[in-house]
Amino acid sequence: MYNPVRLHFGRDVIKGLGKAVSEFGNKVLLVYGGGSIMKNGIYDQVINQLNAAGMTVWKYGGIRPNPVIEDVDTATALGRLNQVDVIVAVGGGSVIDSAKVISITIPYHGTGWDFYAGRHKPVSAVPLIAVLTLAATGTEMNPFAVVQNRATMQKLGLRNDLMYPRHSFLDPSYTFSVSREYTAYGIADLMAHCLEAYFDDGDASLSDRFVFSILQEAIDYGPPLLDHLSDYDLRARIMVAATAALNRIMTMNGRKNAGDWGVHAIGHVLSLLYDLPHGASLSIAFPAWLKLQAERIPDRIAFLGKHVFGVTTPAETITSLESFFTAIGCPVRLSQAGIGEDKKEEILRVMILNQVGGNYHKLSVGDYSRIIALCS
Amino acid sequence: MYNPVRLHFGRDVIKGLGKAVSEFGNKVLLVYGGGSIMKNGIYDQVINQLNAAGMTVWKYGGIRPNPVIEDVDTATALGRLNQVDVIVAVGGGSVIDSAKVISITIPYHGTGWDFYAGRHKPVSAVPLIAVLTLAATGTEMNPFAVVQNRATMQKLGLRNDLMYPRHSFLDPSYTFSVSREYTAYGIADLMAHCLEAYFDDGDASLSDRFVFSILQEAIDYGPPLLDHLSDYDLRARIMVAATAALNRIMTMNGRKNAGDWGVHAIGHVLSLLYDLPHGASLSIAFPAWLKLQAERIPDRIAFLGKHVFGVTTPAETITSLESFFTAIGCPVRLSQAGIGEDKKEEILRVMILNQVGGNYHKLSVGDYSRIIALCS
Repeated sequence: MYNPVRLHFGRDVIKGLGKAVSEFGNKVLLVYGGGSIMKNGIYDQVINQLNAAGMTVWKYGGIRPNPVIEDVDTATALGRLNQVDVIVAVGGGSVIDSAKVISITIPYHGTGWDFYAGRHKPVSAVPLIAVLTLAATGTEMNPFAVVQNRATMQKLGLRNDLMYPRHSFLDPSYTFSVSREYTAYGIADLMAHCLEAYFDDGDASLSDRFVFSILQEAIDYGPPLLDHLSDYDLRARIMVAATAALNRIMTMNGRKNAGDWGVHAIGHVLSLLYDLPHGASLSIAFPAWLKLQAERIPDRIAFLGKHVFGVTTPAETITSLESFFTAIGCPVRLSQAGIGEDKKEEILRVMILNQVGGNYHKLSVGDYSRIIALCS
Repeated sequence: MYNPVRLHFGRDVIKGLGKAVSEFGNKVLLVYGGGSIMKNGIYDQVINQLNAAGMTVWKYGGIRPNPVIEDVDTATALGRLNQVDVIVAVGGGSVIDSAKVISITIPYHGTGWDFYAGRHKPVSAVPLIAVLTLAATGTEMNPFAVVQNRATMQKLGLRNDLMYPRHSFLDPSYTFSVSREYTAYGIADLMAHCLEAYFDDGDASLSDRFVFSILQEAIDYGPPLLDHLSDYDLRARIMVAATAALNRIMTMNGRKNAGDWGVHAIGHVLSLLYDLPHGASLSIAFPAWLKLQAERIPDRIAFLGKHVFGVTTPAETITSLESFFTAIGCPVRLSQAGIGEDKKEEILRVMILNQVGGNYHKLSVGDYSRIIALCS
């Protein structure tokens, strides 16, 4: 386990941004997404901090949700041209993941996709600072980045310790303006991270307890948050839970792979094809995957149900999870996300192309078909 | 939150020591304690690694349990004289804590106690690598070091980010030869760390759940371990629990102080005066402290009891904890540690001298007397 991120958590932590940026130089590449940070004032606060610290700032806005490698490469060119000292990424998972890839691509000569295609290994990185505006992916405290390449129809994850943000600023009030819908997707996302961690090769008792702890936080505080989107305390609890769900504290025990990640692979296919929000792709894929696994690992699924939902059978566990997702407004069937029966073949084809599967629970092409049927 | 330690966990992780040491140079100060690592073969394995990596090694053995500043200063002189590039500490909390202070004192001109007395702040450190042989204090993954100064009758803690080990090697089989008695003290120690974290200023729900998780691990796997001291799986579970209990994962939520630490202050007085093992001092002090607090924070104590022991009242919670400590062979009264009634005044005097108290729960001199009475 290794996690060197300096996490700044709490109200007004943004006031420490200027000092943090100054550690690395005075030329900043500022990366962000759509216009939401303009509307809620976060952009102005970030710019004020950077100006007060005497930074020269180049801006790359417009990183798309379900981030694409083209955005990464364009922002990289801007950063390379101006020899920036540090990258500040303001946004959610898409923005920060893109910025991570930008950070390793600037010192390299090619496209960011070369790292995903295995044609090149990162050797250095421009330091990255994250300002988080969405509690969901955990990217603020991990070395992972997922981007998609629509030309090759792939959405892949990369892990490299160089991609850890040096600092991450987490102010729960920065997530007040996230819609009810996207807040729910964030909750589904953090729960899916716990579940991926849980389905490894056995019984890591402390990791299991941490998984249950974070899931219980999501179940206890997620629904009330959806009715009180500007409640600082509830936003803070979900924000901490999302960070904890994927910062590798569950892998202290020396396991090789931290979790299965097969469901994420399925979800990535759905996002790639239909631009589904990441959390929504997972709330559809996880119940279906669990139904497939119910005959294979019934005890493990039942153990989860017992500790998280107070139920006893695998079937009850899956129903409880599905009901929870439904209650918070996340889809659990393809049709609920507007994906019709006619898309089954297309999904299957892209699953095969992406060699969808997990670290521990491999999936056959027959499994793909069953999963697609189970979420139809 | 910030924790940059690279944790290597599992059987034979020692094989990575040579590579880790080589990152920092080729002159090593090797710090260890009594002769136990000679008997169980760990010393030879470490030396083989260092030799194979072409290191020149200066050795400082004989760090005492309840470490003293004199050992720190002598080892520092050896390291300074030979301008070592890196320190390798092989042992438990005493050895690694001492090595942390050595690491910040070598680049300074004075005594290590200057940092504790507030006369100087650390500005740099010789890189430190830890090889853990005792699951207890969590020092392998935190920036804390406790040493005592018998000349001033003080035992104090220091926190500085420079004191994080760069690498920590945790092989559960390295703890096989720890006696039943010291294994139990280690369990009491890790439980005390959870409890200190729990008694802060309120309700950090995820931190609470993590506390309960680690306590449950200790309760479930501690007693069987005492009957199977060479069981790798049980050693591994307790080792992970001890590391997790004090690596600041419970303080991601932006709290200023991570826990109360008043009971540790009491325990330090007992260790200082009577050379009590750290864990034993805590198994005596915690029940007494809880009895004092039972009228002040009954709900918080009962909440703990409910989640960890399945009981409902503060009194039942304290009894459950006391019974557990007793069952694993830890003392819960001064008399059980051979400290007689005649020592009460001496203890009180040194508590006053050390200004014993916690971050959240301040203690008056009247409280000191009550605590002493409660553990007599």
